[in-house]
Amino acid sequence: MLATRRELIAALPVTAGALSYQAPVKVTKYVRFRRGSGSAYGILEGDRVHPLSGDLFGTNKPAGPPLKLREVTLLYPCQPSKIFAVGLNYKSHIGSRKAPDKPEIFYKPITALQNPEGEIVIPRGAANVHYEGEIVAVIGKRAKQVSVDQAREVVFGVTCGNDVSERDWQNGPSKDLQWWRAKGADTFAPLGPAIAHGLDYGNVLLQTRLNGQVVQSQFTADLLFDIPTIVSFISQAVTLMPGDVIYTGTPGSTRKMSPGDVVEVEIEGIGVLRNKVVAG
Amino acid sequence: MLATRRELIAALPVTAGALSYQAPVKVTKYVRFRRGSGSAYGILEGDRVHPLSGDLFGTNKPAGPPLKLREVTLLYPCQPSKIFAVGLNYKSHIGSRKAPDKPEIFYKPITALQNPEGEIVIPRGAANVHYEGEIVAVIGKRAKQVSVDQAREVVFGVTCGNDVSERDWQNGPSKDLQWWRAKGADTFAPLGPAIAHGLDYGNVLLQTRLNGQVVQSQFTADLLFDIPTIVSFISQAVTLMPGDVIYTGTPGSTRKMSPGDVVEVEIEGIGVLRNKVVAG
Repeated sequence: MLATRRELIAALPVTAGALSYQAPVKVTKYVRFRRGSGSAYGILEGDRVHPLSGDLFGTNKPAGPPLKLREVTLLYPCQPSKIFAVGLNYKSHIGSRKAPDKPEIFYKPITALQNPEGEIVIPRGAANVHYEGEIVAVIGKRAKQVSVDQAREVVFGVTCGNDVSERDWQNGPSKDLQWWRAKGADTFAPLGPAIAHGLDYGNVLLQTRLNGQVVQSQFTADLLFDIPTIVSFISQAVTLMPGDVIYTGTPGSTRKMSPGDVVEVEIEGIGVLRNKVVAG
Repeated sequence: MLATRRELIAALPVTAGALSYQAPVKVTKYVRFRRGSGSAYGILEGDRVHPLSGDLFGTNKPAGPPLKLREVTLLYPCQPSKIFAVGLNYKSHIGSRKAPDKPEIFYKPITALQNPEGEIVIPRGAANVHYEGEIVAVIGKRAKQVSVDQAREVVFGVTCGNDVSERDWQNGPSKDLQWWRAKGADTFAPLGPAIAHGLDYGNVLLQTRLNGQVVQSQFTADLLFDIPTIVSFISQAVTLMPGDVIYTGTPGSTRKMSPGDVVEVEIEGIGVLRNKVVAG
């Protein structure tokens, strides 16, 4: 239904009058990349990466001539000190469960981060590893007890994430007390390829594909708790730092992945996060 | 009972024959401290701190003359990239609940770290904040899928920790799905004062005092899962990095703390971790 409304609006001339027209904000796509033995931040434009020196969340400046995208290896686009994630944040994922009355937060450890095109490794002893395509908020400023309005200014941008989850460790008969490994095993947090800065992320299409087949498809307007609300809520108890990231929850249903599978999370205006699944 | 056995053994002459005598290993106490605008690692000997330059978990060397302990401010003694904690790891804490058949792990975020003598801040909206005195393992080497024997070599040392916990967020009628803020609010992870390296930490006395009164007292030999077992178990799914810390669980029962309270966690051979409680 949202897609239909969206398509209708997109098809209207911008001068239609009944709809207010907003001038497009320039979207900048920030990446982090390795070339040779070094790594750096850069700005992605088409098939070129313009290297930056300095801090992505502080001051930075152009550093050297543009590089061809195929000559660099993209890395997860920032180096968070903390990874937050939200559970049960799309009605389509909750099913018959009760919708939460507050964002339900958990942590993923930073050793779970994986690069675009990096491998998702099924841990030894794991039997039921699922994808979870998500839009991920990237924090740009230290935030402690901020309001929802202030939170909008705290978000530097958004990227794609896969909140990889072992369902038996999470929900099985011998489930763990907490989700430390169900959500936190090595390589369970693919992130990237770019941080879209300036994107209006409130209603963009999120799609997950497994071996090319669309298996999740939803607009971010369907989030139960939107990104500024989540940021404000977390910051009441836990201080957010520049570079911290928040996986905001997954829509619809998920499926088990097997070695050899290729999983892609695509968000319009951001890009495609692609990872191959291998046995540990 | 353990205390009695221990006291008996301590009272025996070391030449008694029936007991094997182990030459004492030298225990080194590492601290991290601030002096003026800088911070550094050092070795604590009596009331003197011998500064070090370099990496605590790599190469380091003496750096300058000793400082008087009272002229420096002790900081949490390492800067972990991840904080693990274990739930339900002493029989005396489990009560009528079923003992777990594996270590039950969760995360605390690094923004929760607090220095010795730093304040534990009761968050706004929190009504039931408890102490949890614990022995904390400090990881010295990268560890992925290590055996229990290998894990012994991975542990750099041990320190004192307070796994501060908001019981309503953890277990109350409106409890959160996961323990992200119950265990993770800012200042909920006091750590220190020193990392004891070379200490035989398998059976040392852990005591917690609230306003001077002993409220927890147990030997670490009573841990259901000992430190090498925990390290090995975690490393099967999540890679441990140098400086990472593991709060190993709390014994006995705990009580609510209020603004103005002073809580101390003391472990023999390590020192006293003292923090004051304030309102947020």
